[in-house]
Amino acid sequence: MIKNDMKLKLEKGRKKVLDAIKEHNGTTLLSTGITGDDARMAKAAVDAGAKLLEPNHPALALARGYKGVNNMDDAEQVRHEIKLEQMLEAAHGVRQVVGEDIFITIGVPGGFTEVMPVVLSDEDFMNIAKSGVDALHTHKSSVEDLKEWVEKAHSFGLLVDAYIGMPTDKHIFGVPAETPEEVARVAKEMEAVGVDFIGMMTGMSYEGVKGGEIHPFMKARLEALVGAVSVPTIAEGGINKGNFKAFKEVGINILVIGTALDNIAAKAIQLEVKEFLK
Amino acid sequence: MIKNDMKLKLEKGRKKVLDAIKEHNGTTLLSTGITGDDARMAKAAVDAGAKLLEPNHPALALARGYKGVNNMDDAEQVRHEIKLEQMLEAAHGVRQVVGEDIFITIGVPGGFTEVMPVVLSDEDFMNIAKSGVDALHTHKSSVEDLKEWVEKAHSFGLLVDAYIGMPTDKHIFGVPAETPEEVARVAKEMEAVGVDFIGMMTGMSYEGVKGGEIHPFMKARLEALVGAVSVPTIAEGGINKGNFKAFKEVGINILVIGTALDNIAAKAIQLEVKEFLK
Repeated sequence: MIKNDMKLKLEKGRKKVLDAIKEHNGTTLLSTGITGDDARMAKAAVDAGAKLLEPNHPALALARGYKGVNNMDDAEQVRHEIKLEQMLEAAHGVRQVVGEDIFITIGVPGGFTEVMPVVLSDEDFMNIAKSGVDALHTHKSSVEDLKEWVEKAHSFGLLVDAYIGMPTDKHIFGVPAETPEEVARVAKEMEAVGVDFIGMMTGMSYEGVKGGEIHPFMKARLEALVGAVSVPTIAEGGINKGNFKAFKEVGINILVIGTALDNIAAKAIQLEVKEFLK
Repeated sequence: MIKNDMKLKLEKGRKKVLDAIKEHNGTTLLSTGITGDDARMAKAAVDAGAKLLEPNHPALALARGYKGVNNMDDAEQVRHEIKLEQMLEAAHGVRQVVGEDIFITIGVPGGFTEVMPVVLSDEDFMNIAKSGVDALHTHKSSVEDLKEWVEKAHSFGLLVDAYIGMPTDKHIFGVPAETPEEVARVAKEMEAVGVDFIGMMTGMSYEGVKGGEIHPFMKARLEALVGAVSVPTIAEGGINKGNFKAFKEVGINILVIGTALDNIAAKAIQLEVKEFLK
């Protein structure tokens, strides 16, 4: 297997993320949902300053109306049935429209702890790399699986972002860790097996956090994560304009925004349609 | 070939359109662009009252970032390369999310006078019908071709909407007709060969019409169309909140809105992203 080409690709992708964090004073945005998989809206996000995009398979299930799902909760139940080719078509198209300077991390069936396990072949990894993405957006739930995943991904020139969750989460989106001490330990283990960007699931199953602040329990977990690792950190779930600043103050480097953008696009369209029909 | 089943399907589709026109006091909306091919935004439009949707292949080229196109003008040059399967996937997904009561007309490669002619087989027509759409959104440029197209479409239970354009149009989106007299004659010919909904291209190659009114030249053409046929009439191109009422007053039954909705969704996303990054 060619090694140096892959190493250069990894470094190129990592530099995009580090540059974006620097440009945005320590905390940048990872734009997902409709801005991750629809080239029109990806371009809109990038034109507004977003440097990091994330097409992912549950969002694609919503985009394609797969099996009629129309909310994220239901989409998580069928996302594993989305075909890798569909994801790569979306990611490749977004890449062609936004250009090479934008970091793209892709969620694919098998990259999460799926309802029904999906195993990716070496050819699949190669095709993912060839689609033009920089990284694999990962929601695996054990450090052991992450070790295998990272080795494979890196050998194909793909960086890996992966997450820490709560043992009680409705959907499994990360390695479970409850107390700040456990978070710090798991984060260090994830960094040790080569995870390139380490995230915290902060939405608590899409319920979000109210009032412009972060729940003290979650805040302590985020501080533990930030303090434990030297790789860039991510928060995903329940982030909105109200609490964005609070996350920034904790020192998280990358904030994931998806559902909020879908909702705002939908609302704008609804207002316009109603205006026409009134 | 089974005939009565197809006839019933045609009647069901026609009723959806007539009911929508009635419900919206004579003039309804046909929502396209991102609301035609993205199930999330199609649902948003339908939740706001839209009853007619139009997924089409140039918009899908934009959605998928096909060959990097990022504007409608460029999309028209590559739309014929979009695969029928991609269109049917989009339309089928939208159908599953919006339900059976919504009228869906689909634009497919070969349904327009393409840069490079595309010929559809009987199997293609059958697959289009099976995807769950009601009609074929057509931009053919001769009544002779339309006759063949309508016969085929009707035999598979698919209604047809088709358009009249200007001989000087940059993109060929209809049968050419310049004076109001020519418009009336062509419209009658189109109705005679069985076109179910007859439209007028009003955007003049996306340049739009300013100031809340319709250019007198175009207004006379629209009046000629409305006066010539008894089937529902459509206007497509350059329609916005400002001039919507003027089109309604002319008596056009269906107003097509696409780019305006794409732009409003993009703008809403851009404002949000900028808010996060400031």
